Amino acid sequence: MFSFKNDYSEGAHINILQKLIDTNLIQQHGYGEDDYSIQAKDLLCQKLNKPDASIFFLSAGTQSNLIVIASLLRIHEAVISAKTGHIYANETGAIEATGHRIITIETDNGKLNPAQIEKVLVEYTLRPHVVKPRMVYISNSTEIGTIYSKSELEELSTYCKANSLLLYLDGARLGHALMACNNDLKISDIANFTDVFYIGGTKNGALFGEAVVFNNPILAEDFDFILKQKGALLAKGRTLGIQFYELFHNDLYFELASHANQLAQKIANAFEDCGYSFLTRSPTNQIFPILPHKFISQLRINYDFYNWKSIDDNHDSVRIITSWATPLNVVDEFIFDIKQLDSNL
Amino acid sequence: MFSFKNDYSEGAHINILQKLIDTNLIQQHGYGEDDYSIQAKDLLCQKLNKPDASIFFLSAGTQSNLIVIASLLRIHEAVISAKTGHIYANETGAIEATGHRIITIETDNGKLNPAQIEKVLVEYTLRPHVVKPRMVYISNSTEIGTIYSKSELEELSTYCKANSLLLYLDGARLGHALMACNNDLKISDIANFTDVFYIGGTKNGALFGEAVVFNNPILAEDFDFILKQKGALLAKGRTLGIQFYELFHNDLYFELASHANQLAQKIANAFEDCGYSFLTRSPTNQIFPILPHKFISQLRINYDFYNWKSIDDNHDSVRIITSWATPLNVVDEFIFDIKQLDSNL
Amino acid sequence: MFSFKNDYSEGAHINILQKLIDTNLIQQHGYGEDDYSIQAKDLLCQKLNKPDASIFFLSAGTQSNLIVIASLLRIHEAVISAKTGHIYANETGAIEATGHRIITIETDNGKLNPAQIEKVLVEYTLRPHVVKPRMVYISNSTEIGTIYSKSELEELSTYCKANSLLLYLDGARLGHALMACNNDLKISDIANFTDVFYIGGTKNGALFGEAVVFNNPILAEDFDFILKQKGALLAKGRTLGIQFYELFHNDLYFELASHANQLAQKIANAFEDCGYSFLTRSPTNQIFPILPHKFISQLRINYDFYNWKSIDDNHDSVRIITSWATPLNVVDEFIFDIKQLDSNL
Amino acid sequence: MFSFKNDYSEGAHINILQKLIDTNLIQQHGYGEDDYSIQAKDLLCQKLNKPDASIFFLSAGTQSNLIVIASLLRIHEAVISAKTGHIYANETGAIEATGHRIITIETDNGKLNPAQIEKVLVEYTLRPHVVKPRMVYISNSTEIGTIYSKSELEELSTYCKANSLLLYLDGARLGHALMACNNDLKISDIANFTDVFYIGGTKNGALFGEAVVFNNPILAEDFDFILKQKGALLAKGRTLGIQFYELFHNDLYFELASHANQLAQKIANAFEDCGYSFLTRSPTNQIFPILPHKFISQLRINYDFYNWKSIDDNHDSVRIITSWATPLNVVDEFIFDIKQLDSNL
Repeated sequence: MFSFKNDYSEGAHINILQKLIDTNLIQQHGYGEDDYSIQAKDLLCQKLNKPDASIFFLSAGTQSNLIVIASLLRIHEAVISAKTGHIYANETGAIEATGHRIITIETDNGKLNPAQIEKVLVEYTLRPHVVKPRMVYISNSTEIGTIYSKSELEELSTYCKANSLLLYLDGARLGHALMACNNDLKISDIANFTDVFYIGGTKNGALFGEAVVFNNPILAEDFDFILKQKGALLAKGRTLGIQFYELFHNDLYFELASHANQLAQKIANAFEDCGYSFLTRSPTNQIFPILPHKFISQLRINYDFYNWKSIDDNHDSVRIITSWATPLNVVDEFIFDIKQLDSNL
Repeated sequence: MFSFKNDYSEGAHINILQKLIDTNLIQQHGYGEDDYSIQAKDLLCQKLNKPDASIFFLSAGTQSNLIVIASLLRIHEAVISAKTGHIYANETGAIEATGHRIITIETDNGKLNPAQIEKVLVEYTLRPHVVKPRMVYISNSTEIGTIYSKSELEELSTYCKANSLLLYLDGARLGHALMACNNDLKISDIANFTDVFYIGGTKNGALFGEAVVFNNPILAEDFDFILKQKGALLAKGRTLGIQFYELFHNDLYFELASHANQLAQKIANAFEDCGYSFLTRSPTNQIFPILPHKFISQLRINYDFYNWKSIDDNHDSVRIITSWATPLNVVDEFIFDIKQLDSNL
Repeated sequence: MFSFKNDYSEGAHINILQKLIDTNLIQQHGYGEDDYSIQAKDLLCQKLNKPDASIFFLSAGTQSNLIVIASLLRIHEAVISAKTGHIYANETGAIEATGHRIITIETDNGKLNPAQIEKVLVEYTLRPHVVKPRMVYISNSTEIGTIYSKSELEELSTYCKANSLLLYLDGARLGHALMACNNDLKISDIANFTDVFYIGGTKNGALFGEAVVFNNPILAEDFDFILKQKGALLAKGRTLGIQFYELFHNDLYFELASHANQLAQKIANAFEDCGYSFLTRSPTNQIFPILPHKFISQLRINYDFYNWKSIDDNHDSVRIITSWATPLNVVDEFIFDIKQLDSNL
Repeated sequence: MFSFKNDYSEGAHINILQKLIDTNLIQQHGYGEDDYSIQAKDLLCQKLNKPDASIFFLSAGTQSNLIVIASLLRIHEAVISAKTGHIYANETGAIEATGHRIITIETDNGKLNPAQIEKVLVEYTLRPHVVKPRMVYISNSTEIGTIYSKSELEELSTYCKANSLLLYLDGARLGHALMACNNDLKISDIANFTDVFYIGGTKNGALFGEAVVFNNPILAEDFDFILKQKGALLAKGRTLGIQFYELFHNDLYFELASHANQLAQKIANAFEDCGYSFLTRSPTNQIFPILPHKFISQLRINYDFYNWKSIDDNHDSVRIITSWATPLNVVDEFIFDIKQLDSNL
């Protein structure tokens, strides 16, 4: 039995675990003041070409989202998100729990554009009876695997700046977006086009950990207080610093994402070859083929995955996710089994 | 240079790291539904002799405190704490940030007793103009190293029950309390005398991790939602389950705490032998000797530690903390250096 | 120039002002413990046929909504509302500011039914990654003037009970709903079919003031603390008690609403007679005729009202509201002017 | 039976009620955009000699405090208050409920000075483990009747500016402070020395109502949103505008406060003449004589008042409050009765 349910079914890349052991008894300052965290932040600033960026290591995606948003909004301000956005769909009201409305936008592809945001701004004008939209939340890759092109992100960035909106990018799967075959964004572009974003570790080879980057350090003012207040400051911050250093000092982060993408695309191609269509065609590590119920049941004998959406009486789309840890041979077997389905007709 | 500043300067006990490696590629369910977490919870229920206890693994002490308290209080209810309590002194207003007042009590020893709480209840009666005291927060061992005796905890428990107050025990250093030479509490007593408590991993051999135990499972109703909402639910919950299993399946947790206590007491005895007194006499892994400024400066050449409190123009008390990782030979050298101070007079 | 913009353009019914003067120098206890408030609560309990109801007087609708909802939901729980619901559309995120998501439902008529709510419950099942729906918020009359029939409210009530959902009714314009010509609900039915509701004073003859009624007193436990905490407890609670006593001791409340409804319907009939259609046909004191832009401009010379919604390139619907204070002769003139429009074609 | 329990036992000054009647049917815009509110704000700006001040009318003191504080603090910031401060002692945790700690200072006289605040700043330096003090809250007159001198307020103001602390003055009884015999502050000084303050109406002749004044309009940015969000924006804002216009256009506000002060001082002098001492000597409308239990019981036959504090086994201090509505003849009778006590010995 092999699980394609998510990209956090395994532990961490062995380099990380090995480094934890190698450095284990070296005494370090607590609360993120350790040498490894400092080193990792310096390294990321270089990679982002943002010497002044203010970087903080957090433990989880929901934690990062809620703390970033709570730290940047005044109490009457709201954040705009696609309805599929993780903050709206999967975080148990974490943002509202900090006091802020999420204004949602229905989308086909999980992405936002200026025209959609403009509509929200028009709708939210009856001051003071409505909240004040102040931030735009996007994900790259999105919750349904799609990615932003450079021109799309640039337009969004320009629009947000012109309308006093902060642009925040959730990069839980940023590696997968940047390593997608049709991607034209560099990680330094992400830093240029957003006000704040995070680089996801948990879904790309870390035990846990997300690196929140404030491209403009003024926005990070007093963020350390807020980190501590929300329970997100680990005593042994070294555990986070070590992980991000290992992921970035030799571009392991990108290699791992690339591995996951390639295997997912290999599977997608196999489905396509067999004539199946997709709910949405994602170039990253999550794919959404549409299959007849009968085939889904057959695949479930040896593989685990989510049924994502009912399509019609006989078909569902399913979600297949690969990760940094997915073995090539398992993928090959899976493809073999997919092709068998077809021949069994 | 060796640091006695805190008990989280090193990584984790090697058994934990080894187990992370051994289990690394075994696929597991996410969000705490993994086999290791389930196993670890079962194990803790046995150790606590509480088959029905509801247990959750969190990442940090402040996180545990704020989520437990926020989940149990209605919006007009308050928590009572010693002024030295971690929630009041060291958590950046984390509790107030969830909407609740901390009513503080001045104490000599960091501990609370029914008489002190009674005074608060008397003071907070002018309904509805005052908050409603609903929870008592204590730490064991306390922030200044002292511990509760069985009779003290039992009295507190009885008083709280009689007054509709929930009793919550912060066990960031619970191991050290239970392994103190004069302790008469068992870990199952903690479960019997409190409504909810947590067993601290971070300060006793884990990379990170605290086990929150609701002794009465009704109090844990919907706690999983709240964990997620506050950003505390790790995707790879296995990381926490593995650690607690390793710490408890062979009583490593108690051994490590015992090691830390013994070394601290050895140092305390050395100070005592040299005629120094203490701010408070702690039987656990943090000690507070009072030293002349001149000696403090001398010790600082090779050792790091906090100046805790100014005593008079010539003396400060300092805080020396040992941990599960403190080497015996370093302690012996430290004691040698302490004795040299004396002979240098 | 006469304004049909809203039903709070004038002060209060003269009986109220006169009673304020008559009782002005009689000393009373503060904070709602005055004789008038007690009397008014007793009176309302009788009218509602709910001797055990727990009643509180608040100052405003948003205030009532946010405090009721915040007092009844645990931190991970959400409230379901029509997208037109006042709490979603017009309260500046007041509910989210207390930490709770509003789950919205698109409706044609501003009302909710069990089938719509069922869909939400089905959507919100991925525990613990989603909030827990716990309350249904409805308005009667709704924000677009429609009303619930007895069978509709009863079905909703039954569904909510069966699904552990609290049913909360915003009665900012409850009088207008109950006095609508096709209404078959009594005020005691409102008390029977909901868990909590409020009777709006501000929009029906009071200077300000809403009476929050907990039909089940257990739900009101400690509500007094929360009132005070949220800044809603007036020192001179007498001001509220006097108003509600005056509004209800001789059914003035119902007379005033009836007056407003009749004038609105008179205007609606005039529009209908002239061949105009309506965005929605409301039997209460707000009506939404669809008019050509040219006529709207002409009417604006002597009357003020809101353009509500653009219908097509040449037509908008407008909102005309009458109140307890609208004079019959102004309405007659307005109707005259409406008919003139027609004849000017 | 006459009550000296508080200064909100009666309704409102008759001028206010009369003006409510006179303007009752004149249609006005809602939500504070009415002519009366605009007029009243202009008038206050003149009186304060602050043409740019941003003024808002709220309904109650707790409401004003919580909204002002919540609007000005970031989530990790705290407010400093005397332990007797209304926000700490009497508001059911309203400030903490918005997420902020109140750091309290023990005082003899209910007032704060720079030396006391300096101590707090020194104590709160262990960034990021502690909240960030950002505001100082004072009351004038204080909750125990004392007042600030001009030099005291100026020093505090200078200190706060130098230390990036906002200075907020709760003027629930500002009139009484400014009309005290030994007062040397003008209302325009209050505006000069503080960042924000409120002028209390409820305790000085209004039905309800407090005028929040931001001396620096930048601090008021978006305050209208927050007012609405917290349920404090009355639909019929006219009710507040009318009251403040009536109170200030002919200095009625100051006359009423002066009346209350004079009667209280007359009573205080009578107690003094009879040889009684005071808990604190207040020059305003609340006095705290220390009386034997026996005399307290005798006075209670005809008068109501609070026992404030137990002094010794035989004595309590009581609180006697007079108001704008206290009749002179009642005070004369009370003094007669006080003197009788003495002669009965």
